[in-house]
Amino acid sequence: MRHFVSTRNLSSKYIFLILNKAEELRLQQEKLPEQIFVANLFFEPSTRTKMSFSVAQRKLGMETLDFQMETSSVTKGETLYDTAKTCEAIGANLLVIRHQEDNWYDELTPNLSLPVINAGAGRGEHPTQCMLDLLTIYQEFGTFTNLNVVIVGDIKHSRVARSNAYALTTLGANVYFAAAPGFKDDTMNFPYISIDEAVEKCDIMMLLRIQHERHTAKQYDSTSYLVQFGLTKERESRMKDHAIILHPAPVNRGVEIDTELVECQRSRIFKQMENGVYTRMAIMIILLKEWGYHNETNPNKCKKIN
Amino acid sequence: MRHFVSTRNLSSKYIFLILNKAEELRLQQEKLPEQIFVANLFFEPSTRTKMSFSVAQRKLGMETLDFQMETSSVTKGETLYDTAKTCEAIGANLLVIRHQEDNWYDELTPNLSLPVINAGAGRGEHPTQCMLDLLTIYQEFGTFTNLNVVIVGDIKHSRVARSNAYALTTLGANVYFAAAPGFKDDTMNFPYISIDEAVEKCDIMMLLRIQHERHTAKQYDSTSYLVQFGLTKERESRMKDHAIILHPAPVNRGVEIDTELVECQRSRIFKQMENGVYTRMAIMIILLKEWGYHNETNPNKCKKIN
Amino acid sequence: MRHFVSTRNLSSKYIFLILNKAEELRLQQEKLPEQIFVANLFFEPSTRTKMSFSVAQRKLGMETLDFQMETSSVTKGETLYDTAKTCEAIGANLLVIRHQEDNWYDELTPNLSLPVINAGAGRGEHPTQCMLDLLTIYQEFGTFTNLNVVIVGDIKHSRVARSNAYALTTLGANVYFAAAPGFKDDTMNFPYISIDEAVEKCDIMMLLRIQHERHTAKQYDSTSYLVQFGLTKERESRMKDHAIILHPAPVNRGVEIDTELVECQRSRIFKQMENGVYTRMAIMIILLKEWGYHNETNPNKCKKIN
Repeated sequence: MRHFVSTRNLSSKYIFLILNKAEELRLQQEKLPEQIFVANLFFEPSTRTKMSFSVAQRKLGMETLDFQMETSSVTKGETLYDTAKTCEAIGANLLVIRHQEDNWYDELTPNLSLPVINAGAGRGEHPTQCMLDLLTIYQEFGTFTNLNVVIVGDIKHSRVARSNAYALTTLGANVYFAAAPGFKDDTMNFPYISIDEAVEKCDIMMLLRIQHERHTAKQYDSTSYLVQFGLTKERESRMKDHAIILHPAPVNRGVEIDTELVECQRSRIFKQMENGVYTRMAIMIILLKEWGYHNETNPNKCKKIN
Repeated sequence: MRHFVSTRNLSSKYIFLILNKAEELRLQQEKLPEQIFVANLFFEPSTRTKMSFSVAQRKLGMETLDFQMETSSVTKGETLYDTAKTCEAIGANLLVIRHQEDNWYDELTPNLSLPVINAGAGRGEHPTQCMLDLLTIYQEFGTFTNLNVVIVGDIKHSRVARSNAYALTTLGANVYFAAAPGFKDDTMNFPYISIDEAVEKCDIMMLLRIQHERHTAKQYDSTSYLVQFGLTKERESRMKDHAIILHPAPVNRGVEIDTELVECQRSRIFKQMENGVYTRMAIMIILLKEWGYHNETNPNKCKKIN
Repeated sequence: MRHFVSTRNLSSKYIFLILNKAEELRLQQEKLPEQIFVANLFFEPSTRTKMSFSVAQRKLGMETLDFQMETSSVTKGETLYDTAKTCEAIGANLLVIRHQEDNWYDELTPNLSLPVINAGAGRGEHPTQCMLDLLTIYQEFGTFTNLNVVIVGDIKHSRVARSNAYALTTLGANVYFAAAPGFKDDTMNFPYISIDEAVEKCDIMMLLRIQHERHTAKQYDSTSYLVQFGLTKERESRMKDHAIILHPAPVNRGVEIDTELVECQRSRIFKQMENGVYTRMAIMIILLKEWGYHNETNPNKCKKIN
């Protein structure tokens, strides 16, 4: 793997390499012995992903180059390619990029001599979010084979749905979609079921955020959306005992999910965020090692303190 | 003290614990042996407070997570509570928050398992600014008992006035207010005197900034405000020899104070900023120790170099 | 040199001190033993310069204080002077400033007790950009004497042209300008030649960016500008074998230069960015040593790893 931009062609073996490394990092601190520079280029808003990468980088002892789009030369018309080449020239060893185009990495990666991680690509993919979702499932069930995963909500505008649907299929899970009219996506071939079927069938209910900022008009009233298509308390009560709830956040409270369920017993929403740090550490270490920026024969490991 | 959000119920003993620790830190460097993550969540503009916390954190060897509101998920409607819980999940050990609501911490702190520092709450409180003001007075006078402190200016919109009035009263100082019509605050019970009485009576003149951004309309012309209600050079000449001038800054030069007085002999305005760093280091250390994130039995102290 | 704000009075000796120190830093890592705080105050957009300073600071082990204008007290009307004094009070040892005024440093530096580096002053000077341009030329030719340097483009709005014209003259190079009508600058006394003369005469072609953001109206159509005044592939083919192309970037691709030439064999555009890091490291070390913040007798050098 030269870059980490999509789950579409990720092998099962490679996914487990990441998941097992992430679990190792959760239990044991590790600092890279090299001075590694990472540029985080976020062209779209982010709290979780950006902060998660930032914590992951500091835990590994990396130097983070923060880039503020609004005060960058992008305001003077500079392209993504030239911005990326600039980071390379200035000494970055790794790029973490979120950008509004669905496939920005296709043209970018062939001309760069450093690894690129996709931290969100328009309505395309969000593969690091997928990996942390998978880690959360893996911690819970220890396997993916024959698990019923229902991805619920604004499938059409969701890069999270796409990355998870590909990877979960690779891992042998059964993927279903549940979506309100207008939120379905014709470009992916997975069976649609109703939200009421979903709550009873699923081992994992993977809720999505309604991407208001990608819609041209508000399509549903919040309360009626929850009642018709969201996870109400009544629906939650019909889920299997062992079934868990995931959501990539930020949550639209009272829309996709009843606000009281956000921190309920079967919710793993904040656990997902915690797992994001270890997952991103794992992906960065694996890429840096593959590119020769990190030499694992010179480890700097120590038992975790707290 | 589980959180540091208000001076209203701070004991005299606790205030002196902070002041004495701050003085110790001014004279002797100290780095925490643990890797501590702090998220600085500023929902309102700041230069001084944010940079001061940032320097304090680096001097202690902490990892600072900077949060840019404009590029965060707050733009997607995420609440303060969910943002704070996210920081907690991602690994923050301490939150420093400035927010436009007067009492944002009341609902926030009960559900978090990490300490919160109030770096400014609407027109409510600004307790770390208060502590650095107190340190500046303490360095000068060695006591607070029976000192005459006059807080002058836009009392009504000032969180600085409120935090100082409470704490100075606790410490035995005599607190007076001086304010132009329209700038008085009926919710606090302290005697009002005129600016001309104030300059002669005070040991400490604590000027406030006119909070233009919290006013609906500009209430006074700058020059006439200075002449009628501000600290002119003539008024300054009537102050007691030992009396000092404080201002939380940014200063509206030529409005609250004659521009030539900003760096005059009795001004402690830039000294306050320097003290802000040591005060905030002290508050953070005390909180982290209380929560068990910092273990003082493993100190990493060294004599200050410069 | 107390501050690094202009090339106008820089001696040849001082320039070579910087260039040779930069070359030394390119070949050998160096970390300062002291904890040094630098505030980067950028009042205008920047990717390259800001990131370059940031990398330079981290490579030297400095603590970077990032300042976001949009969320600072500048939005409350605070002046540059008060912002700079604040940084000084809070503990900064060095200021790196970009500001839209042409001569902001004239009033600022006399009242500060720490060194200031000009990272861009309106249409005035950009001396660190100049030093990295000089380093790139120095690496290529080993001398400046009698080299023909043609500075091409929007001379009138370019702080890069000004800083380079002064310093190159000091170093014994022959400086020419080439500019479209409306882009000439009457305040500098250098000979103007046509772009077609320029390509054949130059050892170094120093292209400038058209500063659209400083123009009141778009003066030229992009394509016709390239054909009439820019570096087309045809013109590039007429350059001397050893001649090189510089550009401070961001490049307006297809305007100042044919997009295919940006990474052509004689382009040093990305090399310039790499050199910017070493040049800025050199300038910072030299200033900090002169001010006594860095003591060179306590070096912390090590052979470069990668």
